[in-house]
Amino acid sequence: MITTPEPSGAIPDRTIYERRESAVRSYSRSMPRQFGKAEGVWMHDGQGGRYLDFLSGCSTLNYGHNHPILKQALLDYIAADGIAHGLDLHTDAKQDFLATFEELILKPRGLDHRVMFTGPTGTNAVEAAIKLARKVTGREMVIAFTNGFHGMTLGALACTGNAAKRGGAGVPLSHVAHEPYDGYYGADVDTADLLEQRLADPSSGLDAPAAILVETVQGEGGLNAASPEWLRRIADIAKAHGALLIVDDIQAGCGRTGGFFSFEDMGFTPDIVTLAKSLSGMGLPFALTLLRPELDQWSPGEHNGTFRGNNHAFVTATAALKHFWSGGDFQRDVKRRGDLLETRLARIAADHGFEVRGRGMMRGVNVGSGELAATVTAACFDAGLIIETSGAYDEVIKVLAPLVIDDAVLGAGLDILETKIRDAMAADYAVAAE
Amino acid sequence: MITTPEPSGAIPDRTIYERRESAVRSYSRSMPRQFGKAEGVWMHDGQGGRYLDFLSGCSTLNYGHNHPILKQALLDYIAADGIAHGLDLHTDAKQDFLATFEELILKPRGLDHRVMFTGPTGTNAVEAAIKLARKVTGREMVIAFTNGFHGMTLGALACTGNAAKRGGAGVPLSHVAHEPYDGYYGADVDTADLLEQRLADPSSGLDAPAAILVETVQGEGGLNAASPEWLRRIADIAKAHGALLIVDDIQAGCGRTGGFFSFEDMGFTPDIVTLAKSLSGMGLPFALTLLRPELDQWSPGEHNGTFRGNNHAFVTATAALKHFWSGGDFQRDVKRRGDLLETRLARIAADHGFEVRGRGMMRGVNVGSGELAATVTAACFDAGLIIETSGAYDEVIKVLAPLVIDDAVLGAGLDILETKIRDAMAADYAVAAE
Amino acid sequence: MITTPEPSGAIPDRTIYERRESAVRSYSRSMPRQFGKAEGVWMHDGQGGRYLDFLSGCSTLNYGHNHPILKQALLDYIAADGIAHGLDLHTDAKQDFLATFEELILKPRGLDHRVMFTGPTGTNAVEAAIKLARKVTGREMVIAFTNGFHGMTLGALACTGNAAKRGGAGVPLSHVAHEPYDGYYGADVDTADLLEQRLADPSSGLDAPAAILVETVQGEGGLNAASPEWLRRIADIAKAHGALLIVDDIQAGCGRTGGFFSFEDMGFTPDIVTLAKSLSGMGLPFALTLLRPELDQWSPGEHNGTFRGNNHAFVTATAALKHFWSGGDFQRDVKRRGDLLETRLARIAADHGFEVRGRGMMRGVNVGSGELAATVTAACFDAGLIIETSGAYDEVIKVLAPLVIDDAVLGAGLDILETKIRDAMAADYAVAAE
Amino acid sequence: MITTPEPSGAIPDRTIYERRESAVRSYSRSMPRQFGKAEGVWMHDGQGGRYLDFLSGCSTLNYGHNHPILKQALLDYIAADGIAHGLDLHTDAKQDFLATFEELILKPRGLDHRVMFTGPTGTNAVEAAIKLARKVTGREMVIAFTNGFHGMTLGALACTGNAAKRGGAGVPLSHVAHEPYDGYYGADVDTADLLEQRLADPSSGLDAPAAILVETVQGEGGLNAASPEWLRRIADIAKAHGALLIVDDIQAGCGRTGGFFSFEDMGFTPDIVTLAKSLSGMGLPFALTLLRPELDQWSPGEHNGTFRGNNHAFVTATAALKHFWSGGDFQRDVKRRGDLLETRLARIAADHGFEVRGRGMMRGVNVGSGELAATVTAACFDAGLIIETSGAYDEVIKVLAPLVIDDAVLGAGLDILETKIRDAMAADYAVAAE
Repeated sequence: MITTPEPSGAIPDRTIYERRESAVRSYSRSMPRQFGKAEGVWMHDGQGGRYLDFLSGCSTLNYGHNHPILKQALLDYIAADGIAHGLDLHTDAKQDFLATFEELILKPRGLDHRVMFTGPTGTNAVEAAIKLARKVTGREMVIAFTNGFHGMTLGALACTGNAAKRGGAGVPLSHVAHEPYDGYYGADVDTADLLEQRLADPSSGLDAPAAILVETVQGEGGLNAASPEWLRRIADIAKAHGALLIVDDIQAGCGRTGGFFSFEDMGFTPDIVTLAKSLSGMGLPFALTLLRPELDQWSPGEHNGTFRGNNHAFVTATAALKHFWSGGDFQRDVKRRGDLLETRLARIAADHGFEVRGRGMMRGVNVGSGELAATVTAACFDAGLIIETSGAYDEVIKVLAPLVIDDAVLGAGLDILETKIRDAMAADYAVAAE
Repeated sequence: MITTPEPSGAIPDRTIYERRESAVRSYSRSMPRQFGKAEGVWMHDGQGGRYLDFLSGCSTLNYGHNHPILKQALLDYIAADGIAHGLDLHTDAKQDFLATFEELILKPRGLDHRVMFTGPTGTNAVEAAIKLARKVTGREMVIAFTNGFHGMTLGALACTGNAAKRGGAGVPLSHVAHEPYDGYYGADVDTADLLEQRLADPSSGLDAPAAILVETVQGEGGLNAASPEWLRRIADIAKAHGALLIVDDIQAGCGRTGGFFSFEDMGFTPDIVTLAKSLSGMGLPFALTLLRPELDQWSPGEHNGTFRGNNHAFVTATAALKHFWSGGDFQRDVKRRGDLLETRLARIAADHGFEVRGRGMMRGVNVGSGELAATVTAACFDAGLIIETSGAYDEVIKVLAPLVIDDAVLGAGLDILETKIRDAMAADYAVAAE
Repeated sequence: MITTPEPSGAIPDRTIYERRESAVRSYSRSMPRQFGKAEGVWMHDGQGGRYLDFLSGCSTLNYGHNHPILKQALLDYIAADGIAHGLDLHTDAKQDFLATFEELILKPRGLDHRVMFTGPTGTNAVEAAIKLARKVTGREMVIAFTNGFHGMTLGALACTGNAAKRGGAGVPLSHVAHEPYDGYYGADVDTADLLEQRLADPSSGLDAPAAILVETVQGEGGLNAASPEWLRRIADIAKAHGALLIVDDIQAGCGRTGGFFSFEDMGFTPDIVTLAKSLSGMGLPFALTLLRPELDQWSPGEHNGTFRGNNHAFVTATAALKHFWSGGDFQRDVKRRGDLLETRLARIAADHGFEVRGRGMMRGVNVGSGELAATVTAACFDAGLIIETSGAYDEVIKVLAPLVIDDAVLGAGLDILETKIRDAMAADYAVAAE
Repeated sequence: MITTPEPSGAIPDRTIYERRESAVRSYSRSMPRQFGKAEGVWMHDGQGGRYLDFLSGCSTLNYGHNHPILKQALLDYIAADGIAHGLDLHTDAKQDFLATFEELILKPRGLDHRVMFTGPTGTNAVEAAIKLARKVTGREMVIAFTNGFHGMTLGALACTGNAAKRGGAGVPLSHVAHEPYDGYYGADVDTADLLEQRLADPSSGLDAPAAILVETVQGEGGLNAASPEWLRRIADIAKAHGALLIVDDIQAGCGRTGGFFSFEDMGFTPDIVTLAKSLSGMGLPFALTLLRPELDQWSPGEHNGTFRGNNHAFVTATAALKHFWSGGDFQRDVKRRGDLLETRLARIAADHGFEVRGRGMMRGVNVGSGELAATVTAACFDAGLIIETSGAYDEVIKVLAPLVIDDAVLGAGLDILETKIRDAMAADYAVAAE
């Protein structure tokens, strides 16, 4: 877990980024290395540096980098000239994926949803979801939540809370109302009550919604985890008011919070679910929108996209489902690691008066300020730990380790985090004491 | 080129599609086979059927399926545990791509544009383009054109002309005006004049535009090819009125019309260019937005996306650039094949009083009705030729063969097309004669 | 105060209404008489019926019908061929109005606002206000409140809370967020806190507002009266977040709540104020938008309207200002009557467990259901008392008597109301007892 | 017809305008006098100046100022305590108006339309019209035309073409497409053909319209008069495409172009008609929306407004209808005066190579530049003639004399205009010759 400083002579010419890559780039600013290879929980730069990945592509690499089983399946497929790109034609790889997804995911959970292959990005899955909700209900307004994050294309961006992202739209973002998420106004205010009151009131100014769009844990918004009770209330409210319930499970799904879906065993069934990120298992672009059969009122091609048939992703996704979701071992491992994570973060939080956020293997610690969080994550990076922040002020240090991480390695990574937080706090005290 | 009927016993259970795939699926309806492998210009179903691909993933497979050089590069990369998913971190694969793209594409064409890695779908590249244009100009209205197609997410969909696609939005599509494309009102009306008049008129109701968004050849809209004169006029009009010129080169770029960009040698330089489809060379999801340096006013992360670092696509894209775009052979081949295509289509059109449309290897024949076109393409499919339609009424049979197709095979495919058109016309006459 | 039933023989042919008046008509449904004359607090039908007016044109006739001083001023003006319609030309009548308004209203209250003569309807004044706020701030979103009512044209309607009114738009109403009004979530929740939290949070999804638009008492929304503390908080919040504070004083202004403006002596000054309804004093169409001088960034004619120079209204408005607002007598009378009204309503409410709402001479009683309220107001009408309802469910019986009403007559009208409520409640009990 | 310069001593203090009137004022800038009285075609300032009114309140005073018959009717009504403000209650004045309007206007023209009393401004009538069209058709997009003017509130403003007015909105104006008006692209292009092509084309990007909103003569847009053939085509196109035809007759109606409606005898019947301006006959605020009975799908109060029952206006409107529209004399007079106007303007135009625009008593001369037009109208004003401009560049000098003007006075006014144009042209030549 040691990062070798880059020997200057060996560095390739990286001025290309300054010269040709748009200023919109972000992660490469706080992690100024160039990476080449990666396997499991490790990423490697070209100068011998090795980094433990507690970011996992923002939960896109739940099974780690280049998992050998997925990798082999993909190598075999490509070597045999398997179809790479198939628009939405039937292919062997798609059939395998659909059958496996039905057998291992949908059926055991009693879900009769249909699978819509949208363009292979989360934002596209969200756009498809809200388009369908609007079409089916004949209503136009969508309720999203404070601190929600749903994507960057215009329809999904309107559902996203972050002002900086919204500002990029260049046009006013319409047809969406942002209501307070669970706990937004503190523990004493039940925001489900507030929402219900406004929807029941014919003079509240809140138009009848086509859908309520919710994340069970807000990945970008600060790892706020809604309670099952609140989510059930939201589900009931949606139903009572003729709105569809859309769970955006792009970051919290695919095992991140324990089950395949983040809403399992909570006592409600979403009308529509969006999936992406870890769906392919190997980081390949892949997204889905699941919908109750009676909502499947699309005309052929009414929503389409060139890359909705990314067969490489079908192959790795199928391999991932078969390997990780056939039995219960994986879920048990994730549960144990999540508990370990919780225990460790609770200790860190207790030491400094911080707050732990999140659920399962999607947890973090709110250190109270974005500056402190940035200091800590930068120090972690220098120590070989890739870790990022979340929240309205980037004030939550979030641990999104691969779910397959060895318990000991997880602990070692958390050791770094704990140390760097302690160091930063000590420096703060020192400054304050001067 | 013979399609073996599927022996019933060997067919896997395909009811999965009925049971679980959304009704939104489209191509699989007119091409009811299940495909497994593909190489070069050929696709194979699992029952021994072989199909010549004149669709090429809607111009996503310009270099054919699983081109051996691209395929090998990808196999090597995966085998060596190359980074698959890298958010927007610097990676060896990204550096290679950027350096190659600069050296082989941008520099020789005198383009100083920067490269924005958007989400890996065309619609995302378009969304980024219009967001930036609105942000930079402080204006909100975008001018798009009749029959234009730019994507399915809300911002791009507003720029798309097709009513059926637009209807899926479920909300009114705003902040875009559709102006008549070149030739829209017939040869006697110069639609650039019309646009100029409206923009110059402070009382026309057409607000000052942030951008003019145009395809040089309208891939989905019926293979209408704008003249260089008209495009130059549009570029001048944009400049005169403080609007950015965005060329959507997603379908017409990457060699489809001859040059790497469809607007080469036309005497104008777009402010922004969108690329996707054949960019990765192997059908992997990849999209870019190119922008003049002075427009690169993005804040870090202001537009982002989980899959904006699809490194597999970087690898194949780099290999494709090096193989096809280092010298002039490929362009000469494409030019020759395009001429061959034009000659053959002209003959077909002349035989039946049809009209040829398009440019380069992006051509088709307007047979006057969607029904006739569907009859012909269905007959082609039965004869082992995959070919599709385009246009407001799906009345244009479009030939989007891989650019690498052997001249003889191209001719053989066109033989099928010619025969099936003749048969369909004969059947029509027969019906009419009854 | 006795209503003579209409003798059938003398009734003119009123089928004209059925034949030619749009179904949109409303008050004439619950008050099916035809009125001819009116003076002071009385309206007369043509069959000898006389009605005490506790509606006052929804607070448009604060000085009663055809007040003799206003009436004479108008008669003199017309007889002398005074300009009736003057676009926005300078006229003697306009000068008189402006000078009087400055002298009697603006100066004594320390207001340096400028006067914008908008089209002569409240909705137009609101449209002008929000247009200006958006123009000046460069922002697009306006914050309005639950149960707010601001007009029926598209911009003002977007700020209106009522779902039935909103539904008439036929397009989604955009660029406005409705936040909870004072007391909306009960006494325990300070909705100013909620608003402040959301505006301070860069990830709340609430865009930076151009303006906060508020009524101090919600005339149509159920006579909810905001506390001075809450209003000051809202004023502070607006200032802190770069938004303009617009007080819509169309119904609550012109003396209805005691002062000329409803926000006097509350410790804050709105950036923009809208006035209409009782401004002309005699029920003639007239509306104004007042704006701080530094906000007066209009270009000439940027907002205009044919009837923005209704000189008849200038004449009666000037007469009203001089007669009622030169000394303090009128305000003292209104204060006394408002107290009388409060006392009487409190007694009624106490008798039946109802709730009193409102402020000054703008008060009502929430009887808990629209049906009960409709029963009561219908019985009042039959007894010669014109009175209407308000609120999301029309559940608030509102007393909007002319401010000039004689105390005894006010008491007599309230006697009718008290009786009819008692009767209706008794009938309810009788039904319940069956 | 001589304007006495204002003796400085006698001028009242007019700094009030600078101090307190918003910068939005416009006409008072180019006509810097203060007016007091007016009768017939004459306006008087307080210093003995008398002005011939060729503006007529932008066609609001078609019967001249303070017409004695209308004036007397109003004086009698007020003196008798007639209801001034009646919300939408039935009143004697309303009944008289409705019955008279039915008898003298609707019935003779075979119109079965219902009358909707909107707020008393033109923009409100337009808002009501488009709201209803959207509600009834379930569509959202409205087609308006280049150079159209329909009002300043958000819904009507979106239909208005003028960029300066639109810019005041502060938000993007949506759900309206502006199509080229008759003759917009010159005599050789039939813009009805263009519209038909776009609406028939499922890929044009022009959504199915709720309504087509058109002025038969564009009062603000430069006095462009559509041909009856073109208007019939537009009516047919609306019908064929399921859109309602709305004629905005606010400026061109009430006799201005000869008939009561501007579309009489043209062979089509609008679904909806808006009226305002000269409807009251005396310049009082009054507006109506007429609608076919089957479109009258409003819920009670779904569109309302405090001043929708301006009974003073009902009284003068009724008097005007009875006096001017009972027989054919008035129309014959208007026809003769319109012909006289045409002849005179044609002569002026011929002298200088200008172009005559308009129809009936709504005509003007396009002098080619706003500067020249401003020079001429300023000179006219100094000579005692009130006259204004129109058009995208204010380049059309428009003559909107009262319809009741004496032929000789009309001629005298045109003499002034002719002279001032000649002078301005001579000055131009002199400058050019230097």
